[in-house]
Amino acid sequence: MTTETTTRDTTRSGTQTAALTTARSGTPTTARTAARSGTQTDGPGYVHGYSTTEAQRLGDQANTLAELLHAGTAYRAGSRVLEAGCGVGAQTVHLLAASPGIHLTAADISADSLAQARARVAAHAPGAQVTWHHGDLHRLPFADGAFDHLFVCFVLEHLADPAAALAALRRVLRPGGTVTVIEGDHGSAFFHPESAAARATVDHLVRLQSGAGGDALIGRRLHPLLTEAGFADVTVRPRTVYADGSRPALVEGFTRRTFVAMVESVRSDALAAGLTTPDAFDRGIADLRRTAEEGGTFHYTFFKAVAVNP
Amino acid sequence: MTTETTTRDTTRSGTQTAALTTARSGTPTTARTAARSGTQTDGPGYVHGYSTTEAQRLGDQANTLAELLHAGTAYRAGSRVLEAGCGVGAQTVHLLAASPGIHLTAADISADSLAQARARVAAHAPGAQVTWHHGDLHRLPFADGAFDHLFVCFVLEHLADPAAALAALRRVLRPGGTVTVIEGDHGSAFFHPESAAARATVDHLVRLQSGAGGDALIGRRLHPLLTEAGFADVTVRPRTVYADGSRPALVEGFTRRTFVAMVESVRSDALAAGLTTPDAFDRGIADLRRTAEEGGTFHYTFFKAVAVNP
Repeated sequence: MTTETTTRDTTRSGTQTAALTTARSGTPTTARTAARSGTQTDGPGYVHGYSTTEAQRLGDQANTLAELLHAGTAYRAGSRVLEAGCGVGAQTVHLLAASPGIHLTAADISADSLAQARARVAAHAPGAQVTWHHGDLHRLPFADGAFDHLFVCFVLEHLADPAAALAALRRVLRPGGTVTVIEGDHGSAFFHPESAAARATVDHLVRLQSGAGGDALIGRRLHPLLTEAGFADVTVRPRTVYADGSRPALVEGFTRRTFVAMVESVRSDALAAGLTTPDAFDRGIADLRRTAEEGGTFHYTFFKAVAVNP
Repeated sequence: MTTETTTRDTTRSGTQTAALTTARSGTPTTARTAARSGTQTDGPGYVHGYSTTEAQRLGDQANTLAELLHAGTAYRAGSRVLEAGCGVGAQTVHLLAASPGIHLTAADISADSLAQARARVAAHAPGAQVTWHHGDLHRLPFADGAFDHLFVCFVLEHLADPAAALAALRRVLRPGGTVTVIEGDHGSAFFHPESAAARATVDHLVRLQSGAGGDALIGRRLHPLLTEAGFADVTVRPRTVYADGSRPALVEGFTRRTFVAMVESVRSDALAAGLTTPDAFDRGIADLRRTAEEGGTFHYTFFKAVAVNP
């Protein structure tokens, strides 16, 4: 399922941004590896994030949430920054917008995602200085302390051993450098009207991700994970999305097009895994959609952590 | 169970603050009425908040949370403000501290709570101008538009028909005046390590409150409730408590002494109602306590709403 690939390209800005290495995905030891190295299937190993419509969804999500998630993250021009697990570049473009002049290395284990990320950055940040790296974040080929800052967004949720991944990342961060980690937590979702069917449907997504070796409830674990990985001055803050009738753009952009769409995307996987029936799943989705209608409310919490390599 | 009472007193500041009316609690039509008009029992009708240790707990909670909940609430000196459901005065003292010079009327259906509130205000805000009113917030004797602002904190969760209560309160608010409502939502609680036993134990509290006619999940409903009650420009924002090892005072003040203590206080009621067994309940409490130890995290969301009487 995995392939040995050399990627080499030049961005539209004309900057030479050859991939730094020949990456070998190797044995899929993590959920992320499994998800990114294989084709989409209906099996329970599916982790959201790697289809064409998913790429669109993630782009929408990033735009809606950009300010919420990126506020407070701005690196000095000239800083060497690594985005570990850039995926399709949904966050990369916001990272570059907030920190002009940085030397960004964007790494991902999926060549397809990386190609999309390159195209997205070329379109949205044509002058940005980006080095694209195709490889596994557990085995980055960079020198110890090669970066001033690490940025890791919506990545740890897919990993079987996120503390080990963070420890591997810490090696390439200079002493005194910072890591920023952003993750969601599907257990933070609650809504009105309350619905057991909707709650069960969300739980299916959590179970599928767990079955694939990930953790959809990882947001609440960022503090202990970063501490375990050897970081210091670990500061975690919730970043909450709350949508009600007074915020129609958020209802549309987050509740409907991000959260409900994400849950809905695992329908066939949840059925294949025997977690639910078509009727029960669809009832849950209908109830989730109800929370985006008049009188409904929806709440979700992301967690943003910043820590220092001592 | 209810009594007709006239209260009359003078605060330490010397200001005459006779109760405005002879209040008759009448038939206990709401959970709050039921809870406040009766003695504490072990039956499922119990709603946390009305024992001596509970008063201490609520005072601790108010101090820990004062800044979180009261930030942004400051009324102009001379404003006529009604605190509907002041209870033991846990929020009253913070309200007065943030808004010196207001003419506060503090109302509650429990004479005992009101007496504690008076003592608390006398101790903490001796110069404050407070009128104490013993009565039911559904049938306040004040003139239409008598107040510039209403403040309602941790009250609606106990009411069988919170929209009706808000509509009754709106009558005594002048056009253009504001209402501020603060409520928790026990469904917002999540924690690490995750624990089904802990979650079940929290759910018992939710069910007991529901059985008593209240709603421990009311925070998420503030927007539709205020809208239904006829208020305009309804703005609701989450106010999140997130505690981890980097915030020991919050872990102690909120996770342990507020949330876990609150859940623990319904032990006998949960057992009497047949919701759980001693072992299962205690396991849930132990798991909740674990979230306050090293590597644990705890998350809870309050909701604060501000709206205008059109």
